[in-house]
Amino acid sequence: MFRNQMPRYEVLSEDAMATLDTGWRRLMTEIGVEFMDDRALALFREAGQKVEDNKVFLDPDFVLEQVAKAPSEFDIQARNPANSVHIGGDSMAFGAVYGPPFVREGDVRRDGTMEDFKNFARLAQSFGALDSAGGVVNEPNDTPLDSRHLDMTLALQTLTDKIYMGNVVSGVNAADTIAMTEILFGSLEAIEQTPATISLINCNSPLRWDDRMLEAQFEYTSANQPVVLTPFILMGAMSPVTIPAALVQQITEALSGIALSQLIRPGAPVVFGSFLSNIDMQSGSPTFGTPESGLGLLCTGQIARHFDLPFRTGGGLTSSQVPDAQAGYEALMTLMPTFLAGANWVMHAAGWLEGGLVAGFEKFIIDIELVQMLQHEFTPLEIDEDSMAFGAHEEVGHGGHFLGAMHTMERFRTCFYRPLLSSSENYERWMRNGAKDTAARASEIWKKRLEEYVEPELDPAVREELEAYVNRRRTELGD
Amino acid sequence: MFRNQMPRYEVLSEDAMATLDTGWRRLMTEIGVEFMDDRALALFREAGQKVEDNKVFLDPDFVLEQVAKAPSEFDIQARNPANSVHIGGDSMAFGAVYGPPFVREGDVRRDGTMEDFKNFARLAQSFGALDSAGGVVNEPNDTPLDSRHLDMTLALQTLTDKIYMGNVVSGVNAADTIAMTEILFGSLEAIEQTPATISLINCNSPLRWDDRMLEAQFEYTSANQPVVLTPFILMGAMSPVTIPAALVQQITEALSGIALSQLIRPGAPVVFGSFLSNIDMQSGSPTFGTPESGLGLLCTGQIARHFDLPFRTGGGLTSSQVPDAQAGYEALMTLMPTFLAGANWVMHAAGWLEGGLVAGFEKFIIDIELVQMLQHEFTPLEIDEDSMAFGAHEEVGHGGHFLGAMHTMERFRTCFYRPLLSSSENYERWMRNGAKDTAARASEIWKKRLEEYVEPELDPAVREELEAYVNRRRTELGD
Repeated sequence: MFRNQMPRYEVLSEDAMATLDTGWRRLMTEIGVEFMDDRALALFREAGQKVEDNKVFLDPDFVLEQVAKAPSEFDIQARNPANSVHIGGDSMAFGAVYGPPFVREGDVRRDGTMEDFKNFARLAQSFGALDSAGGVVNEPNDTPLDSRHLDMTLALQTLTDKIYMGNVVSGVNAADTIAMTEILFGSLEAIEQTPATISLINCNSPLRWDDRMLEAQFEYTSANQPVVLTPFILMGAMSPVTIPAALVQQITEALSGIALSQLIRPGAPVVFGSFLSNIDMQSGSPTFGTPESGLGLLCTGQIARHFDLPFRTGGGLTSSQVPDAQAGYEALMTLMPTFLAGANWVMHAAGWLEGGLVAGFEKFIIDIELVQMLQHEFTPLEIDEDSMAFGAHEEVGHGGHFLGAMHTMERFRTCFYRPLLSSSENYERWMRNGAKDTAARASEIWKKRLEEYVEPELDPAVREELEAYVNRRRTELGD
Repeated sequence: MFRNQMPRYEVLSEDAMATLDTGWRRLMTEIGVEFMDDRALALFREAGQKVEDNKVFLDPDFVLEQVAKAPSEFDIQARNPANSVHIGGDSMAFGAVYGPPFVREGDVRRDGTMEDFKNFARLAQSFGALDSAGGVVNEPNDTPLDSRHLDMTLALQTLTDKIYMGNVVSGVNAADTIAMTEILFGSLEAIEQTPATISLINCNSPLRWDDRMLEAQFEYTSANQPVVLTPFILMGAMSPVTIPAALVQQITEALSGIALSQLIRPGAPVVFGSFLSNIDMQSGSPTFGTPESGLGLLCTGQIARHFDLPFRTGGGLTSSQVPDAQAGYEALMTLMPTFLAGANWVMHAAGWLEGGLVAGFEKFIIDIELVQMLQHEFTPLEIDEDSMAFGAHEEVGHGGHFLGAMHTMERFRTCFYRPLLSSSENYERWMRNGAKDTAARASEIWKKRLEEYVEPELDPAVREELEAYVNRRRTELGD
């Protein structure tokens, strides 16, 4: 997996960090955080925190004590050990888009289906730049609502041999995910020892954790499966319009959720989550790839390191409807800060379109290109006698060219990043080849990749047991 | 003008800098640099440097002594004082694309004309994000070759009241530019005291300065007009394939040219230039917006600061034929490092398409959006009680929204960057509005801007004198 050994780009001064520190302490103490779950309230009450109705007024120092119990780094095992990932430190893990109800394929935008879901999973499997297909790559709207989490989990387990995300729609769904993961990895002990799923717990920002998300958190944390506690903030709607206020709120929400995880199971793996952008104040529409979201992302990395926690943020976000110039620049406007900040768990790294409402096949390929490019760009240079190539200058001289130089011949295959998608054809050749723009080329690439896809092998007995579990549970759920 | 008060992103360790230092010293001493101009050779010889044929073997310490005479910051005056720029420090100045023979307008790619040139100049005038239209925004192929520099300079002087670049095709053209600048600013003394043009002197890399460029350099430097000494390096062709080798060569070339400027006129303003990308090793095509060029750019900034020189690099570079996703992400893949490195003079900041062969009207608008976004993103946050907005939380409470909060109402007009081009319309509205992609919207924007353009006022006597100069010189040049 990719390790980002370049420097982190930090934009907050010590003074700024200290000011933010006073901010979240006050918010947590005086406004408090709502937890819509009695078990959560009981845990906080037992730990001596002030609880009124669903509001918990947290002592910041108590919260920091809990946060300190969380590991700063941990592993997640994949069924193919070569695809296991490390979360934290300088590791960066990448998953595909998560959650869109719609799919875009060329000029067609339509409801997502289970076949789309499977195809995205296959694509995620086939690109080394991704560590995971993620979880809900798209909503499979043609499957029954109550049991589709079983279908999705089975698809992720069988069509990929990478890590996958757990379902969080309810505690029941989370328990199913854990049960299926036990089957795939042999036992609960095996996945308690080294987690095998990671799940997204979103805050109902501002300052409220909802019941279903908390139920799922209880399931996953109890089984030692990592959860990503994520304030879901579109500034101007779910937080005040200023970035510092959003950061203060984000700290309050994330740390309060992390504290709960540590009360449920001390030492359980958690990730400081961030999903931070803003709305358009004229229309109220969510916007992505904005300057404000980029700046917020850079700050978030610095803040998570301050608390010695792995963090999640970033991705190839865009508001664009189609995989056009805006989609390209907005995706990179988020992805480059993602690398500058060294995000540890990058959701939505491929396929995000139209503010997350659409999983785009062409956009998926564009994002893979961007992630691959950035993985190259964020690899430190080796600067030594050999790479300074004095001998090549002796060979070539003044005003010459290096195309045939020995130093070049020895390195030309691997010296530069080789594009997957980008074209540098000259105009005449590009015209002869059909004058295809980036979206048209991306369309050819994903179709070809799907044709070439080979399903990773799986022990037939395990597959049978997974399928039996899915069938039994589907019946129980009445679908 | 924009001041970049964010931290610089530096990726070279002290050890790496020291290794590069041994590299350029050796290259300069042992391989030397060719100067295809007898006056240049005579100056170096008189200064005690070893000269053989056209090759000058430079003493690195002598070069550093010359470099130390160059100002680390300087001003360039515009005829509208509000548009004067500062080059160096944390200032960043932006100019439009420079040099393309072709123009793209929608689906049409054709030879550039003088009317295109004028339209790009008008657009550059109308966007505050640009400090200059640059110089040869596109080649006006419908004007006579020998006198078109007069037409271009006159257009830049009259259609914009911003700074402009000088022509460098020959010493004669440079002298004409200076003469016209004297007319515009009143006297040679006026522009010697505060320069009023800036000119691009490209190296014929590797390690050769050609006669025409040197002639132009002599003219501009003698008149105290800044020159941008720019190694023109596509790694794999004009330099070895390794980034460290390109950096060493770039230092050698840039510093040798800067040393010459200081021999011509000690203290003359110069800019450490960089134009650094790579070729595709399979096809030999130039490629832009690559990981290698981004990394090289970050290093270049650090190197220029090491020598206490203002530097030029960056822009909205791309190999793409059309203003599509690749054009968007490659442009930003160069522009974001441009800001991270804090480049002082950014050429090609708007309109670059197809490896620089095409000036694109739609791409111009895309790049303006990117520059504007980055100018917002690279503005430090104010983090204080007010921006942390505790009162807004008191007002809104848990799970509420901030749309109507007092804190929001007071700030909603200016709190976020307002896009020029990007769309966050919801799908239904976007469809109703014609389902226009980014390129289609950009096309509407540049046409509307041209309609709204107002030519800046100019003293009729000055205009008459400029036109008389152009007419006289055109006759003398036989066009």
